[in-house]
Amino acid sequence: MPRRMLVTRTSLPPSDFVTTTISPLAPAEFPDMPEIAGVRIATAEAGIKYKNRRDLLMAVLDEGSQVAGVFTKSRCPSAPVEWCRDSLPAGVARALVVNSGNANAFTGKKGQAATDITAKAAAQAAGCDPRNVFLASTGVIGEPLDAARFSGLLGKLAVDAKTGGWMDAAKAMMTTDTFPKGSTRTITIDGQDVTINGIAKGAGMIAPDMATMLCFVFTDGPIRADLLQLCLNRTIGASFNSITVDSDTSTSDTVLVFATGAAAKRGVRTVESKGDRRLRLFQAALGDVLGDLARQVVRDGEGASKFVTIDVEGAKSARSAKKIALSIANSPLVKTAIAGEDANWGRVVMAVGKAGEPADRDRLAIWFGDTRVAVDGERDPAYDEASASNYMRNSEVAIRVDLGLGSGRSRVWTCDLTRQYIAINADYRS
Amino acid sequence: MPRRMLVTRTSLPPSDFVTTTISPLAPAEFPDMPEIAGVRIATAEAGIKYKNRRDLLMAVLDEGSQVAGVFTKSRCPSAPVEWCRDSLPAGVARALVVNSGNANAFTGKKGQAATDITAKAAAQAAGCDPRNVFLASTGVIGEPLDAARFSGLLGKLAVDAKTGGWMDAAKAMMTTDTFPKGSTRTITIDGQDVTINGIAKGAGMIAPDMATMLCFVFTDGPIRADLLQLCLNRTIGASFNSITVDSDTSTSDTVLVFATGAAAKRGVRTVESKGDRRLRLFQAALGDVLGDLARQVVRDGEGASKFVTIDVEGAKSARSAKKIALSIANSPLVKTAIAGEDANWGRVVMAVGKAGEPADRDRLAIWFGDTRVAVDGERDPAYDEASASNYMRNSEVAIRVDLGLGSGRSRVWTCDLTRQYIAINADYRS
Repeated sequence: MPRRMLVTRTSLPPSDFVTTTISPLAPAEFPDMPEIAGVRIATAEAGIKYKNRRDLLMAVLDEGSQVAGVFTKSRCPSAPVEWCRDSLPAGVARALVVNSGNANAFTGKKGQAATDITAKAAAQAAGCDPRNVFLASTGVIGEPLDAARFSGLLGKLAVDAKTGGWMDAAKAMMTTDTFPKGSTRTITIDGQDVTINGIAKGAGMIAPDMATMLCFVFTDGPIRADLLQLCLNRTIGASFNSITVDSDTSTSDTVLVFATGAAAKRGVRTVESKGDRRLRLFQAALGDVLGDLARQVVRDGEGASKFVTIDVEGAKSARSAKKIALSIANSPLVKTAIAGEDANWGRVVMAVGKAGEPADRDRLAIWFGDTRVAVDGERDPAYDEASASNYMRNSEVAIRVDLGLGSGRSRVWTCDLTRQYIAINADYRS
Repeated sequence: MPRRMLVTRTSLPPSDFVTTTISPLAPAEFPDMPEIAGVRIATAEAGIKYKNRRDLLMAVLDEGSQVAGVFTKSRCPSAPVEWCRDSLPAGVARALVVNSGNANAFTGKKGQAATDITAKAAAQAAGCDPRNVFLASTGVIGEPLDAARFSGLLGKLAVDAKTGGWMDAAKAMMTTDTFPKGSTRTITIDGQDVTINGIAKGAGMIAPDMATMLCFVFTDGPIRADLLQLCLNRTIGASFNSITVDSDTSTSDTVLVFATGAAAKRGVRTVESKGDRRLRLFQAALGDVLGDLARQVVRDGEGASKFVTIDVEGAKSARSAKKIALSIANSPLVKTAIAGEDANWGRVVMAVGKAGEPADRDRLAIWFGDTRVAVDGERDPAYDEASASNYMRNSEVAIRVDLGLGSGRSRVWTCDLTRQYIAINADYRS
């Protein structure tokens, strides 16, 4: 699978050229994702920024499709994020249009005009109201997006759209991503298969809330929009809001979940109440899909060579545990030590200390993998540098901190910080 | 001036060996710092971690010397920080002992024992109470500090100590620093010269509050401890609490100001009230020294190739402006763009947006140097990529953001994020 975006630098020696290979942490393959009745997909080459690759995605949804969403908390959100926020309350979706190469963020009135043009063209193509069209853009910030470049393609895309084509859809959204991200789960409701397919993009500018990413989930389950939103709100915290690559929060983060309800034709009754047991089943599967995709984003973290799981337990509260876990996950010194395969737990202590949350140095214990490296405020008496260093050579590293104060716990995922991150980001626009 | 700590890596190509040269942003030379009556200095090679260099500093202060201090806000402070915090309320100092190579942080009861041994030995050497001895340690976290290695040297140091020797003192504190940091101001009070000399160390793990650094300031001005503390509290915010290298906060940050009062012998009356006009004069000069040293720390930021000044104005409040300024200064994507000489103001928008402070995208204006690159929520109509890119080639870069909401303003200093930072920090302990 070739890297789709080639970035080259001329001012660094050859070893610093951004590689065209996929992340060493990528899953072995894109999952085999079933078709979902009521969702048709098409992609095209619009030439927005990239040449010779598909950069435009359209998904057409059957009438009656419900939608839920969560968005970036940035105070400077992109035009498509504002568009989606305005459209979401109705809970009805008929089409999704996504482009890569340009984020349509900080583009002022021109940005709003671009979303209007795109939504109108997509609505005409899909035969629906523009407000039932959802939009997302990813790429460079601040460049005006020329919607005319692709609005003319949407009519043909709507005609060509077919069930399936998930990998092509995931690829069309890629920017600095090195592999397309997909995840699928099938559950049984009322004796019938109900499928949840998700695709995502994201590699840099990744931090809660939320990771800089786009994620679109589709299901044929018949679920009312407000309940879909409830499931999303309950699962986003432990998935996309528990990952960080570089502590930077995007203007464009978007997660949308679409439910076509097509399974109703096979006898699945519509989920219409909070207390419905089937909703919990659906929510668990949705959480699995979102968690899987979120971890894939970390595995594609810009320049990442290690996948890192950070567990904090024994905190005063879950919120406090999460703040400490993110302080560790976002520390450049912790991340560079991991890149250097250095079991530098002193930097973990530093990151705990700077989080500003309750912590008692003399109750702190820290593990790298199964090896306890520190206990009771000092180095573990049984600490063995050779075995700790050996552990750090793994491509997946787990760090666990027990604060010894309470029962609050949290898990977050991140990656290491390498010179490849610098090479990728020092010259992204060029 | 040779780099004192050599760090080498074997797993990277030659271009990634940590250089032994001083920072390209270093001042041309160490300042010519006058003697200060009542302060005597000596340094020694204790071999704590480094070989063939002085790593131990002792300053002996005349009887009657007053002291003020501020320390890290880390919840996991080092043993010397706890020692100083306990000793500070008396406001009296007779000696300062600083070692590099080991931070005596997260060393449990052993760490406390090490501070006790050191303070007792220094007190015996200086002929004072151990509680009048102030301590600081900088270097690796988590390694027990063997105080016996240098406590035996303190008797001779106290005898050898001489007025002057400021550059040697600054050098003895260096860890990843590539140049010693000093600053001096002389003011006239009651017709007499009063001098303020400061030395500092710091290069990585630098973030408010406070930067990871040690800073010691000495003056012959006769100023009572509580007023000295007042001056320090009023000047630390715009100096050491306005810099960041990597957003990581140390366990060891310490700023101490010592006033010997020796100028009283030359007829300078002791400053004893808040309203004393001479206090404002002193405070301004102290602020200059602290600001100069804080900026020198940024100039020695690990791997730094650019010195960056960030001004935020038009915010709802000064506090809000500072939070936004630090969000920009700490953003890895902003910092790598600067390293790549890329006028990527879209990332500045991102960092404003993620700060969580009041901001209106459509009122935002951004300048790189004198060039306005964005206005009213979009790219400046007069934006010229070539001229913006040309500006980014400077070794000093100024970024200004006007939020257009109020009159709150703040200035912070930082440096860029380069692959050299990764090389330095991926293998610091080895």
